[in-house]
Amino acid sequence: MGSDKSPIVAVIMGSASDWDAMKKATDTLEEFGVRYEARVMSAHRTPELVRTYVEEAGHRGIKVLIAGAGGAAHLAGVIAAHTILPVLGVPMQSAALNGIDSLLSTVQMPAGIPVGTLAIGSAGATNAALLAIAILAITKPELTEKLIAYRERRATKVAETRLT
Amino acid sequence: MGSDKSPIVAVIMGSASDWDAMKKATDTLEEFGVRYEARVMSAHRTPELVRTYVEEAGHRGIKVLIAGAGGAAHLAGVIAAHTILPVLGVPMQSAALNGIDSLLSTVQMPAGIPVGTLAIGSAGATNAALLAIAILAITKPELTEKLIAYRERRATKVAETRLT
Amino acid sequence: MGSDKSPIVAVIMGSASDWDAMKKATDTLEEFGVRYEARVMSAHRTPELVRTYVEEAGHRGIKVLIAGAGGAAHLAGVIAAHTILPVLGVPMQSAALNGIDSLLSTVQMPAGIPVGTLAIGSAGATNAALLAIAILAITKPELTEKLIAYRERRATKVAETRLT
Amino acid sequence: MGSDKSPIVAVIMGSASDWDAMKKATDTLEEFGVRYEARVMSAHRTPELVRTYVEEAGHRGIKVLIAGAGGAAHLAGVIAAHTILPVLGVPMQSAALNGIDSLLSTVQMPAGIPVGTLAIGSAGATNAALLAIAILAITKPELTEKLIAYRERRATKVAETRLT
Amino acid sequence: MGSDKSPIVAVIMGSASDWDAMKKATDTLEEFGVRYEARVMSAHRTPELVRTYVEEAGHRGIKVLIAGAGGAAHLAGVIAAHTILPVLGVPMQSAALNGIDSLLSTVQMPAGIPVGTLAIGSAGATNAALLAIAILAITKPELTEKLIAYRERRATKVAETRLT
Amino acid sequence: MGSDKSPIVAVIMGSASDWDAMKKATDTLEEFGVRYEARVMSAHRTPELVRTYVEEAGHRGIKVLIAGAGGAAHLAGVIAAHTILPVLGVPMQSAALNGIDSLLSTVQMPAGIPVGTLAIGSAGATNAALLAIAILAITKPELTEKLIAYRERRATKVAETRLT
Amino acid sequence: MGSDKSPIVAVIMGSASDWDAMKKATDTLEEFGVRYEARVMSAHRTPELVRTYVEEAGHRGIKVLIAGAGGAAHLAGVIAAHTILPVLGVPMQSAALNGIDSLLSTVQMPAGIPVGTLAIGSAGATNAALLAIAILAITKPELTEKLIAYRERRATKVAETRLT
Amino acid sequence: MGSDKSPIVAVIMGSASDWDAMKKATDTLEEFGVRYEARVMSAHRTPELVRTYVEEAGHRGIKVLIAGAGGAAHLAGVIAAHTILPVLGVPMQSAALNGIDSLLSTVQMPAGIPVGTLAIGSAGATNAALLAIAILAITKPELTEKLIAYRERRATKVAETRLT
Repeated sequence: MGSDKSPIVAVIMGSASDWDAMKKATDTLEEFGVRYEARVMSAHRTPELVRTYVEEAGHRGIKVLIAGAGGAAHLAGVIAAHTILPVLGVPMQSAALNGIDSLLSTVQMPAGIPVGTLAIGSAGATNAALLAIAILAITKPELTEKLIAYRERRATKVAETRLT
Repeated sequence: MGSDKSPIVAVIMGSASDWDAMKKATDTLEEFGVRYEARVMSAHRTPELVRTYVEEAGHRGIKVLIAGAGGAAHLAGVIAAHTILPVLGVPMQSAALNGIDSLLSTVQMPAGIPVGTLAIGSAGATNAALLAIAILAITKPELTEKLIAYRERRATKVAETRLT
Repeated sequence: MGSDKSPIVAVIMGSASDWDAMKKATDTLEEFGVRYEARVMSAHRTPELVRTYVEEAGHRGIKVLIAGAGGAAHLAGVIAAHTILPVLGVPMQSAALNGIDSLLSTVQMPAGIPVGTLAIGSAGATNAALLAIAILAITKPELTEKLIAYRERRATKVAETRLT
Repeated sequence: MGSDKSPIVAVIMGSASDWDAMKKATDTLEEFGVRYEARVMSAHRTPELVRTYVEEAGHRGIKVLIAGAGGAAHLAGVIAAHTILPVLGVPMQSAALNGIDSLLSTVQMPAGIPVGTLAIGSAGATNAALLAIAILAITKPELTEKLIAYRERRATKVAETRLT
Repeated sequence: MGSDKSPIVAVIMGSASDWDAMKKATDTLEEFGVRYEARVMSAHRTPELVRTYVEEAGHRGIKVLIAGAGGAAHLAGVIAAHTILPVLGVPMQSAALNGIDSLLSTVQMPAGIPVGTLAIGSAGATNAALLAIAILAITKPELTEKLIAYRERRATKVAETRLT
Repeated sequence: MGSDKSPIVAVIMGSASDWDAMKKATDTLEEFGVRYEARVMSAHRTPELVRTYVEEAGHRGIKVLIAGAGGAAHLAGVIAAHTILPVLGVPMQSAALNGIDSLLSTVQMPAGIPVGTLAIGSAGATNAALLAIAILAITKPELTEKLIAYRERRATKVAETRLT
Repeated sequence: MGSDKSPIVAVIMGSASDWDAMKKATDTLEEFGVRYEARVMSAHRTPELVRTYVEEAGHRGIKVLIAGAGGAAHLAGVIAAHTILPVLGVPMQSAALNGIDSLLSTVQMPAGIPVGTLAIGSAGATNAALLAIAILAITKPELTEKLIAYRERRATKVAETRLT
Repeated sequence: MGSDKSPIVAVIMGSASDWDAMKKATDTLEEFGVRYEARVMSAHRTPELVRTYVEEAGHRGIKVLIAGAGGAAHLAGVIAAHTILPVLGVPMQSAALNGIDSLLSTVQMPAGIPVGTLAIGSAGATNAALLAIAILAITKPELTEKLIAYRERRATKVAETRLT
């Protein structure tokens, strides 16, 4: 699934069951008009697919990769091992351990291979998209403006909250 | 401290005691020839300093901010609240809880305000620099080449390891 | 929302979703006849609002601030950074990690900027109000009497419990 | 041990081995000229001593109680059960579990009996004193001034840090 | 609530909400024909009640005390501080942290004041009763026989399980 | 090792490396004049030895068994599976995880087979001995007197502590 | 329950309540045509049954043992203590602590007695069967082929996932 | 490093710093006369090396692979993704989090790709070798005999321990 034929952000997840949370990432990218594609591929079940996909990603115009996975969540790290593009990891909330396994498996990468990790679950998926947009905004001033407007809308919404 | 008069990466830490770990970030930036400045400022003790610094950072040419802090590590999140530039967080190893407090305080940001979080301690500091370089490399092909060479050097070093 | 035009306790929360738990704080303040106001504002989404509110709080007669937040719960710490008034923190139960992230983000403050932290969730909200009342009671003997009566009522209720 | 014959802050610890950390509390109280007394008494080994001491504390002029204990750290909770004065808890770093047991035993109090909990170890001890001072400052303007000056000194120290 | 006018086991819990789990203890005592009484009393809300009850328990013929509590679960430790009778603790499953707070608050007692701690929740309540019975069996051979029969029944039940 | 030819308490440990901590148990038993024997045997390496020893323990006059083990600490549970005598477990501080593995492996027993668990490490070893003594005191009034005197000595020691 | 009269894999669980998860192991063994038997037996409630069963297992042709248990999960370790056959452990998701107790009790075995531990819950049960099959495949080439085909089917299923 | 030209066990580790612990695996293999080779290769820094090595391992006669790694320990999982041979994982004790990150990253594999995980650190390394030997023993009766003898030696050593 994707918004366009020449995506610049790849949203990858280890299992279709991650889609509920990861859809927050693609929804956010769409809201900002950033072209993306979303794919299911598994570091463990389809390692060759991950490798080929990631190695070609740069040539196809991908600038940032977002990876969501749970449990022994190796997807973001394995992607990072195959590319020097920025890789952002989203730990999925896992069945048994609530995502603390996913978080540690994603964030505790050894020196040399970075994964910028976001919060567990859907908040992290939204933020992975926002961080990707912030990265792309370095060369796209219109994204900077949209990010400022987005923040202002959310700030206004908070400021206008009335407790009853 | 810094490498240059027009830095593009800011390396901020909450306390001078974080410098041992965070120096890995500035060492790595230097190794890649990326201009940076390193500063101590505290989200809790000098909130105004943080706010002013961050608000001006974009105008001064800063493209990416790296923040290292420990314990109730609010620095990266507070910085992210004041800028739409990419913010990378490095949880410091803390005295009592080994950095699990720093990690959760840095990574579990609410939807809307992303912090790309790296590993606890010096590995995270190195990787924050590498991720910043990968972000900058989107518009600087020479950094891409340097990243590829860096990875190759490290891969070679691993491959040549002999156990005795 | 608030009980009065000249509140002496401020109850602040990072999100409207915290209101269910934080209402225990305002209910308790009302039960003791302590004037308060309750507000939603976010350390991350509305940092300026927090700063201005907190800086003015003392001048407006606020004596104690209570802050409830979840996840990377920076609200209490950021408030404490902007005031020397007593700040009490209530960690919210979080979606993924049950509030252990909120607790560590709130309580593990560095030396210099204290946050008196209460239990996770609604018990903590009730107790933040009671601790605020105990603080105010230092100069208001009628609150001391009410606290003694409150404790006695609860003790009696426990002592009269019959198991069936 | 104590600074004076009519103390207004009591600093209590469960064991003489807590003194290294808890001394940060009394050092801070001394720095602010706040009269205190420091005592060792154990919720488990000397429960009567704790009860009598706490019940008399208010009559003797004590306004705030600070309790430091480790492991199954019941001291602050037991003190809070015997007084309606504000009670601040400092979890000690414990031998086996680094203080996570002390923290949870201190902070997770049931609704009705609040303990304002600070960080694990010596940072928490310093902050317990600062929070006690902030509480006392409500009726002592000179403490407010000292707190502002203390914060400014520390902010200046942070701002003047030079990394080398 | 209790089985008899001269109980030899006391089952105490911090709150009526613990009764669901703690009823497993009294059910087991009844199954073995051991006289008991069950009471709600709180280390924090009714400390005097706990103290008086425990101090008189030995004189009233109580031989073993079982205490169930959750969160900052001080009940078993406070009871143990007031008696040299054997005290068994049952950590209740807590709302936020699943009982890890209850467990650590109950088991991590300092040298000098033991609490024999059982598993979190209803399995622990059953086992506290069984351990109390094992303790009483030292002088009551009929309990030894009943314990052997109880174990055999349960072993048979396991051995006869058929999976389908 | 043991104090006597007809021991009534057995102190068992999984490895000679547990002796440093478990010696606190035998020291305490000696201090109270309680006959004991101390043995190394492993639930995993010498299961038959454990089984035979435990099955014969009752016939040899053993009234209480104390078991100390670390890591996947099965010793106390395996002993409890082979006897209806009271079994007390002491989780050893483990190399990697500080004893949280030992604690959970010892305390989280299923309904039916109780292990009264004490604190991690040497405090737990001391307390296992004290709880065994409290159990034995039910039929030995002289132990009750010794326990009261022991508590008084420790209380006096705490009460006489002077901070300097 | 079992597939055949001469099983080569034994699937053992501590309680019938583990069957829901452990059925994934037997389903997988059936899918591969590997003969097995599934039994409930408890390390704590039926230690003799476990011992006899395990000691005879090798003579009966069992090549691999799979053990699923929860809480203080000693089953796999106790089995491993009685056989030199490969033992695989599956930690069950536990009521209070989500299976972290089961995991640590299963995996943290001392040097000398290995248990190959899989993930918590049903994923672990499936994988225990797959690892048993991989072990058996060393001498059964048809299992190798089936494993390759199984992986390919699952890889294809992942690769064909379409997000909508 | 290795014992022979036609190894049947591969011992792989992510970093030369893992060698101290992993040497226990090769020492044990040597003690049993099992041919092995030990190699450093990193799932993140040398993914191609890992892939090629693992894909060729079976053809070269490797029957079992042992992988030791720390932090976000992906090595065992990545190896398992590339082979249907049995893969055993050893979580290394990590700098910040003591190996709980390594353990969860290694053991919490998704259904389909098993990693038999051993204890954290050197005990796990020894046990990985022993489990590999037990696996190989299915077709090598002399290894069965050696395992029995090994266990007996260790049992004797435990049984002969004298405490002094």
